[in-house]
Amino acid sequence: MAAARRRQGERLPIWFMRQAGRSLPEYHRVREGVGMLEACARPELVTEITLQPVRRYGVDGAVLYSDIVVPLRVAGIDVDIVAGTGPVIAEPIRSRGDLDRVRPLDPGRADFVAESVRLLVAELGPIPLIGFAGAPFTLASYLIEGGPSKDYARTKAMMVGDPELWHDLCGRLADIAATFLTVQVEAGAQIVQLFDSWAGSLAPVDYLRFVQPHSAAVLARAAALGVPSIHFGVGTGELLPAMAAAGPDVVGVDWRVPLAEASLRIGPDHAVQGNLDPALLQAPWPVLAERVRDVIRSGAHAPGHIFNLGHGVPPNADPDVLTKIVELVHAEGPALRAEALV
Amino acid sequence: MAAARRRQGERLPIWFMRQAGRSLPEYHRVREGVGMLEACARPELVTEITLQPVRRYGVDGAVLYSDIVVPLRVAGIDVDIVAGTGPVIAEPIRSRGDLDRVRPLDPGRADFVAESVRLLVAELGPIPLIGFAGAPFTLASYLIEGGPSKDYARTKAMMVGDPELWHDLCGRLADIAATFLTVQVEAGAQIVQLFDSWAGSLAPVDYLRFVQPHSAAVLARAAALGVPSIHFGVGTGELLPAMAAAGPDVVGVDWRVPLAEASLRIGPDHAVQGNLDPALLQAPWPVLAERVRDVIRSGAHAPGHIFNLGHGVPPNADPDVLTKIVELVHAEGPALRAEALV
Repeated sequence: MAAARRRQGERLPIWFMRQAGRSLPEYHRVREGVGMLEACARPELVTEITLQPVRRYGVDGAVLYSDIVVPLRVAGIDVDIVAGTGPVIAEPIRSRGDLDRVRPLDPGRADFVAESVRLLVAELGPIPLIGFAGAPFTLASYLIEGGPSKDYARTKAMMVGDPELWHDLCGRLADIAATFLTVQVEAGAQIVQLFDSWAGSLAPVDYLRFVQPHSAAVLARAAALGVPSIHFGVGTGELLPAMAAAGPDVVGVDWRVPLAEASLRIGPDHAVQGNLDPALLQAPWPVLAERVRDVIRSGAHAPGHIFNLGHGVPPNADPDVLTKIVELVHAEGPALRAEALV
Repeated sequence: MAAARRRQGERLPIWFMRQAGRSLPEYHRVREGVGMLEACARPELVTEITLQPVRRYGVDGAVLYSDIVVPLRVAGIDVDIVAGTGPVIAEPIRSRGDLDRVRPLDPGRADFVAESVRLLVAELGPIPLIGFAGAPFTLASYLIEGGPSKDYARTKAMMVGDPELWHDLCGRLADIAATFLTVQVEAGAQIVQLFDSWAGSLAPVDYLRFVQPHSAAVLARAAALGVPSIHFGVGTGELLPAMAAAGPDVVGVDWRVPLAEASLRIGPDHAVQGNLDPALLQAPWPVLAERVRDVIRSGAHAPGHIFNLGHGVPPNADPDVLTKIVELVHAEGPALRAEALV
């Protein structure tokens, strides 16, 4: 929390995007026979899954086990998660007539989320719970493409071809995302992360014109609730200044931009989060450890640093490696940060 | 050719990466019943497929119809292209013992390539034939992963975990790629493009240490043959200075970095190629046309500009849209370039 507020000192907090879930054997045990979205809707199960990595790794934050499409489903969109594919939208949103199907999220229907958060906050004690939601562009890309996409061609075609429809759709999605975050914060989440997973596919000019205003609207709603926010997308080197200008407290950075350089791009008003290349989790430990230290040293030049990977934990990650990273960050982080600034 | 040599004046040349192949109905007709790699090995068929987009679009360059893995196969690697998957390597290269299977490319076994080039050069007249090869990193990634990958985890693990093996492998691949380009140039190709398709997955520090020297070796061999070279990868905004320093005449840029900005990053000694977002091919024509003009205006600030997409032509592209882009670039390019510089 202090790092997000740029009052960090030398302590270095750490968590992992996607720390809960598919990379943990204990997760597969409790999920057996339960569909992904069904699991997200059971507060006791969400609590257990969210706590698993906190117990195992000793990370400094818990991230609510959920999925980017959960708020869409709560808002009435027919969406499912198909194993091996990802989110699949039964009827994609492609014309103005389809827009009526994107209705506001009724917080009363997100009771299971509030309940999960309440259970978690009670269990977590001093460890903050990170709430989360997908940003309007990434949500829109799923709704328009009908599922995951390689090039977001239909999404971009709507964006530039029918800007009015695009902005109406994203306005609705911003409201859904903000309401979903509000439910989590009002139930006790202390910080939120807004994921714009696929924003890095955009040219900066399109990001600024068609995406940033809607992300900014969501982040402003989070700020009004008094909690700090983190904003992240992968491959966003060119977008970092624009994502920072959307108003988060912390900008998540993937592994392609060193954190010190990222901090120069986003300026002194934002902390950074990241950014170890998750592919390096398969490297020999001495090499990986040195790369962890490089990330720590680089992050010391930002006004706040939350250690993380530069993207989510891969499904085949070895949990023991993640444990060692947490130990290293906690043991060596303060000294490495202090040294880097001498 | 003049643009590549930074003696362009106001004319604006255009071609499309992957202009030959899967997006053209006439391609599907001639490929019927013929496997991808089998097609690459038949000079008459290669000639026909390579000429199809030149006839249809009136582009200023032909690019040899081939595949990034063709030189690997000529060098004796057991590789095939599986429809819907991509290249599949029968026995991936993962240890020093595997290295023996990566042997030099015998130019005598690439006669079918030389023959294709000779046939093409005779047909093309003044239109230059662009030779092509995959860069060592991208070739290595296929060999190590065994096929396409999302995160290149095994590749990166070898790179940082066993640098000696990595450099030995990439040295061999650089020699294969350079020999493959040499065959094409000696048969008449006037310019070459070295594709490092997936280099954008790397952190700059890894690119510089583990990749750039090997790409530089290939580009130096091309330079020694007296032909200009183009070097391209997708998502390489952070790598542009390092890719330029590898020694190509032209740096290909994807759509994430405006060409004027890319030119600032790579300096005055390199022309640029690109960089219309291929996803925008599905946008309404007036919008798309304006984006084409934006690319032209931005590219005018580089010391040379070859118009292209920022990545390959998507399989579902409408060829008529590409025709209109060529017409626009030829009709308006010179005036737009002149105006942009006033």
